[in-house]
Amino acid sequence: MSRIAYVNGRYRELRNASVNVQDRGYQFADGVYEVCEVRGGRLVDYPRHMARLQRSLRELRISEPMPLPALAIVMHEVVWRNRVTYGLVYLQVTRGVARRDHAFPPHPVKPSVVVTARALNYEKNQQTAANGIKVVTVPENRWPRVDIKSVSLLPNVLAKQEAREKGAYEAWYVGSDGFVTEGASSNAWIVTTDGRVVTRSVDHGILAGITRAVLMEVMDALQIRLEERPFTPAEAYEAAEAFVTSASQIVMPVVAIDGRTVGNGQPGGIARRLREEFHRFSAFS
Amino acid sequence: MSRIAYVNGRYRELRNASVNVQDRGYQFADGVYEVCEVRGGRLVDYPRHMARLQRSLRELRISEPMPLPALAIVMHEVVWRNRVTYGLVYLQVTRGVARRDHAFPPHPVKPSVVVTARALNYEKNQQTAANGIKVVTVPENRWPRVDIKSVSLLPNVLAKQEAREKGAYEAWYVGSDGFVTEGASSNAWIVTTDGRVVTRSVDHGILAGITRAVLMEVMDALQIRLEERPFTPAEAYEAAEAFVTSASQIVMPVVAIDGRTVGNGQPGGIARRLREEFHRFSAFS
Repeated sequence: MSRIAYVNGRYRELRNASVNVQDRGYQFADGVYEVCEVRGGRLVDYPRHMARLQRSLRELRISEPMPLPALAIVMHEVVWRNRVTYGLVYLQVTRGVARRDHAFPPHPVKPSVVVTARALNYEKNQQTAANGIKVVTVPENRWPRVDIKSVSLLPNVLAKQEAREKGAYEAWYVGSDGFVTEGASSNAWIVTTDGRVVTRSVDHGILAGITRAVLMEVMDALQIRLEERPFTPAEAYEAAEAFVTSASQIVMPVVAIDGRTVGNGQPGGIARRLREEFHRFSAFS
Repeated sequence: MSRIAYVNGRYRELRNASVNVQDRGYQFADGVYEVCEVRGGRLVDYPRHMARLQRSLRELRISEPMPLPALAIVMHEVVWRNRVTYGLVYLQVTRGVARRDHAFPPHPVKPSVVVTARALNYEKNQQTAANGIKVVTVPENRWPRVDIKSVSLLPNVLAKQEAREKGAYEAWYVGSDGFVTEGASSNAWIVTTDGRVVTRSVDHGILAGITRAVLMEVMDALQIRLEERPFTPAEAYEAAEAFVTSASQIVMPVVAIDGRTVGNGQPGGIARRLREEFHRFSAFS
């Protein structure tokens, strides 16, 4: 089956799905994106992702490309046309096509919209979670507006590649203050030896993760103690557990950081439990 | 006449010139670019631009999309097909099309190549240079690898837009050390009251401008004194002259910075002279 993408009003085969070379997303990284998990063919925590999309667009003063209910229909349609029951749906909105000039186009142009979806291998992901992943730390080198979920992702690309080459799956950024900010495509968490879950608060130059926000509600319901504060790699090395969160990984246990074993080298009990319980607290659209 | 772009082996009308939605340039800003001035239908300082392109590609480990002589033919062909005698030619190379995943594609993909060209209005640009432009300073907020000429330009877009809204044409970044780094799309220069030209050296987190490098040869030939060192906005406000350099602007006099008049508010004599003499020292391809 060919994969299908939505591009500016049309459903196209992915291999023929294209945008103009003067799309500002291509020439300037002038656009934003969202990724939603798909489960049972439904979108997980879709309203929160749309709220964050709206915020990202507002911060960059990109107009909403279509009414949100219409966008919801498109995203569901792309999921359906690709027969995705478990996987991801990806949405990208850019400022649109205009003659190349750094500043915003003097006359408003229509934002570009791309939606793609793809299936993930559920069993494989569960196996990855059962084994846990490795993380390496890298110096924070992104611009300060990482609260905007923009496609200006080249630093993240290089950090992820560095992790890959060191046999790890994710890179955790460490700021000049010595504290972990977040992962290259996830939020970073540890669990202290006395069972408190620690993650940085969102007022410190990290993206406000949707999975992060929902997980806090899960912890609240399960009466798991949460501390929103920064932590250092040194504290993480000695933590009882560590994990990352993102829409594509939900709660993914971390078993090694910079080559040092976390806990007993197996996914921790709290991370496993949070992963199992997460979708009881998700909104399905 | 329709404008023509080269995209991955084909010459297309610009409005139909497109790249796949999964091009990593579009999803990750994972690509680099060059802009050359066109004069008399010929490319200005082309070999230096290609050398910088090669360096940018090497830093990101993107393979060369085609032998450089072939690329030269393409760029000249695009200039010719668009009947550009005075203007710009734009080249973008990205890592290519691959299923979305931050790290480099596990199996090498073919880099994408886009070339466009457009005419500029010579008289209008000369008039702009005769009037001089205004600059505002903004906090440096880009990632440290600005030595790579990547399309991860969202911070530059926002800085240019801020300048525009303040009635200026360019934004000068000021680092946390209080010194000007460079413009959002140019290098920054001042002239001291005793006639020394000052610009930051390229080992301080700026792009190695081609126009900047050629201009240094011009100054050497004209026995104009050069000091490679950082300067503050305060020093710039009090300078005798200021100007910016880029392939599209060559030497563009600056007559106001942050609303403060530079010199007597007219383009300075050294900037004017350097602009006039520049192309005597350029290589034309």
